[in-house]
Amino acid sequence: MSELRRDPILRRWVIMAPERGLDLVSRRGGVPPPDRSEPCPFCPGNEHLNPEVIAVAADDGTWGVRVTPDKRPLLRIEGAPEPRAAGMFDVMNSIGAHELVSDTPEHDVTWADFSTAHMVRLLEMYRARTVDLRGDRRFRHVFVLKNHGAVWSSYRHAHSHVIATPFTPKRLEEELLGARDYHRMRERCAFCDQLAEELRVGVRVVARNAHFLTFAPFASEYPYEMWIAPLRHTADFGALPDAALAPLAELLVDALARLRATLDDPAYSVVLHAGPLDGSDQAEFHWHWEVVPHLGHALGMEWATGIYSNPVPPEEAAGRLVAALPVPSTK
Amino acid sequence: MSELRRDPILRRWVIMAPERGLDLVSRRGGVPPPDRSEPCPFCPGNEHLNPEVIAVAADDGTWGVRVTPDKRPLLRIEGAPEPRAAGMFDVMNSIGAHELVSDTPEHDVTWADFSTAHMVRLLEMYRARTVDLRGDRRFRHVFVLKNHGAVWSSYRHAHSHVIATPFTPKRLEEELLGARDYHRMRERCAFCDQLAEELRVGVRVVARNAHFLTFAPFASEYPYEMWIAPLRHTADFGALPDAALAPLAELLVDALARLRATLDDPAYSVVLHAGPLDGSDQAEFHWHWEVVPHLGHALGMEWATGIYSNPVPPEEAAGRLVAALPVPSTK
Repeated sequence: MSELRRDPILRRWVIMAPERGLDLVSRRGGVPPPDRSEPCPFCPGNEHLNPEVIAVAADDGTWGVRVTPDKRPLLRIEGAPEPRAAGMFDVMNSIGAHELVSDTPEHDVTWADFSTAHMVRLLEMYRARTVDLRGDRRFRHVFVLKNHGAVWSSYRHAHSHVIATPFTPKRLEEELLGARDYHRMRERCAFCDQLAEELRVGVRVVARNAHFLTFAPFASEYPYEMWIAPLRHTADFGALPDAALAPLAELLVDALARLRATLDDPAYSVVLHAGPLDGSDQAEFHWHWEVVPHLGHALGMEWATGIYSNPVPPEEAAGRLVAALPVPSTK
Repeated sequence: MSELRRDPILRRWVIMAPERGLDLVSRRGGVPPPDRSEPCPFCPGNEHLNPEVIAVAADDGTWGVRVTPDKRPLLRIEGAPEPRAAGMFDVMNSIGAHELVSDTPEHDVTWADFSTAHMVRLLEMYRARTVDLRGDRRFRHVFVLKNHGAVWSSYRHAHSHVIATPFTPKRLEEELLGARDYHRMRERCAFCDQLAEELRVGVRVVARNAHFLTFAPFASEYPYEMWIAPLRHTADFGALPDAALAPLAELLVDALARLRATLDDPAYSVVLHAGPLDGSDQAEFHWHWEVVPHLGHALGMEWATGIYSNPVPPEEAAGRLVAALPVPSTK
């Protein structure tokens, strides 16, 4: 049965999801080609296969973005966490929300090809899901995750994930801890300081407009890593003002189009890191999107030691990403 | 130029190694087949191509294990760390030791095939390198890392890495922090408690002998993850007694042979986590080897959020690993 287990030393919650085990075995020998004879359950006309959580209309009145519960959720919406001991260990029920977003009615159009208007629809929906899931007091964080071109993906339709967790995942906890310590020392937001530094130095800036900055972080763990962050301090993605939707959509699409042009359409992941749902850390945290291409280098070292080595300094990555495409029109 | 950069929020040192950049580009489109026409630089007869750091003799008087400096080191042995500011950021020179170990004179024999006697030679060498590198006061940790079957590996000869770092890598820092907090609360070692619990419960035990225990950890992040740890508390791998060499060799070879038999020779990594070289955390830390097969599932989620999901509960993994091979002869 699915449950959350906590590592007593690393203090990290791990989802034990045995019902997903068959996949593992079938994937070992290479990814089986998707069965093209079956109709895509997420394409228009097959809506009856997937209950609707929410949909955002396109200009012609049909749906433009549509959200359903994931059929094989990592975290289940029913129940209470019920944290308990198991011998010396800690366990709780693997509750949470795991929603699957059809990013577009079109089967295989990706974010890099989206019009600003369509990307705005998607962002409106992520904002709406953040606000809605905040109402469920069991949840502490909402993530948005988009994987592109990944061999491990179960679905072929252009899709993304909205995930709400009853605990603070390790990666976000590290960011929160770092941001809190920084704020305690300086009464300033670490992200704001980093944005100011990047604007001052300039060499790692990929694109900007009046609201947002795209840059390659100084200590990028991965080659061609990019962050897209609001220039004005804000921790709550649910409070994204309407006026910022198009500028954010523009820079997200721009970043992924640059990545594709620079690296010949690599696999990549995009994730939204936002502040805790309970409204804490408003001064310390600063929401941002992270973009990382999966280039398949040295996983052994990173897993083994936590030492990341990056063969492409962010200054060089930014230079190539800037040169790959013209400057966005609405700077 | 190669340097260490610290992420101001995650507080993680990243090695910027631009001289390794060409590899990245060539790997994107698939791994080029190794050039078989060139002689292997690590096979016997080509010792002149690689300066010797240390060698351990085989029974016939030729070398059985041989260590050379890595030709494309992630960390360089020359110089001082010279930590300094770069704007708001922290930088230091990427010094350290990065040694390449020819595990055996035979080109492609892997640990799972080693005799106990040969694995003992390798362990003696890791112990000797730990003791020697401790003498260099610039270094804080020594890691041993073995990758098997990984597509990203640059060398084809059976090899492993010895790496000394002037900083505490993130993964080990997390273990140290967890182990210190646990010890502060209980005056007991978190690893010792976990070993006692695993022996008591039994369902996650893979193998054991008088000195060591192999088990699948309760909150395994990866399917078929295994730890091999000494039953008696010890943080210092350099102090491994001679009497423990053969028992450890036996369980390491046993674990990898079981993994191969259970999963049809998967790619895997093996790493030694040992206490700090300066002798701190002797009561809190407990050295251990970690073994993780690389089964290529959901990397996007783990990167994006730090949420690990594991489709094979460790009880099930342990059951399969135990059943895969007979119990070791010298229990």
